[in-house]
Amino acid sequence: MQATAEIAAEFVKLCQQGEFDAAGERFWSDDIVSVEPMEGEMAVLHGRAAVKAKGEWWYANHTIHATEAHGPYVNGDQFAVRFLMDLTAKASGQRMQVEEIGLYTVRDGKIVEERFLFHMG
Amino acid sequence: MQATAEIAAEFVKLCQQGEFDAAGERFWSDDIVSVEPMEGEMAVLHGRAAVKAKGEWWYANHTIHATEAHGPYVNGDQFAVRFLMDLTAKASGQRMQVEEIGLYTVRDGKIVEERFLFHMG
Repeated sequence: MQATAEIAAEFVKLCQQGEFDAAGERFWSDDIVSVEPMEGEMAVLHGRAAVKAKGEWWYANHTIHATEAHGPYVNGDQFAVRFLMDLTAKASGQRMQVEEIGLYTVRDGKIVEERFLFHMG
Repeated sequence: MQATAEIAAEFVKLCQQGEFDAAGERFWSDDIVSVEPMEGEMAVLHGRAAVKAKGEWWYANHTIHATEAHGPYVNGDQFAVRFLMDLTAKASGQRMQVEEIGLYTVRDGKIVEERFLFHMG
């Protein structure tokens, strides 16, 4: 079983290569809980299938021009990654630069929770 | 009672002005828990007095050349701040640039937990 710092380093490396799906496939627990900073039915998702479906919806509805992943930042069984995304929402055509922090909790070598904090500064 | 996003914005503003003590005085709960990413007796501290004493120890043992605070990043009752610090440890004379994320949990308008994640990237 890998230590949190090792998992964090591998996870960030995959994200830096744009391999977000591979990062999830490799490290999500079957029971992963995903918490987004919004109200509504997508705010909390339970399980790999639901989280994967969210990702597919997201990619289908946005054009990604560029991404950056910085980190990891580590404390105990948690690590954080800072994401910068340059994207266009297909529905509105609006291009935006988004910054967020992904906060990940690890148990038994897998990510059991991901939580996204959106930049408001 | 202030919403998390408002507290987060005020907290970051004070930190950007270098007013870290004032930020703590204003927003720490009496029961605050502080979690640092290290082993040892300072790793988890309970209560305002203990957290304040840690801060005093820290300032007494480091010379701060510059600090930056970026954010906040917000999700529900939690917010994060990214800190950059240029400092010299007085004991060793070693100057270093440190990056960390402070993750704060708010309850009843006060910060009940602070947790620091150190940059390892």
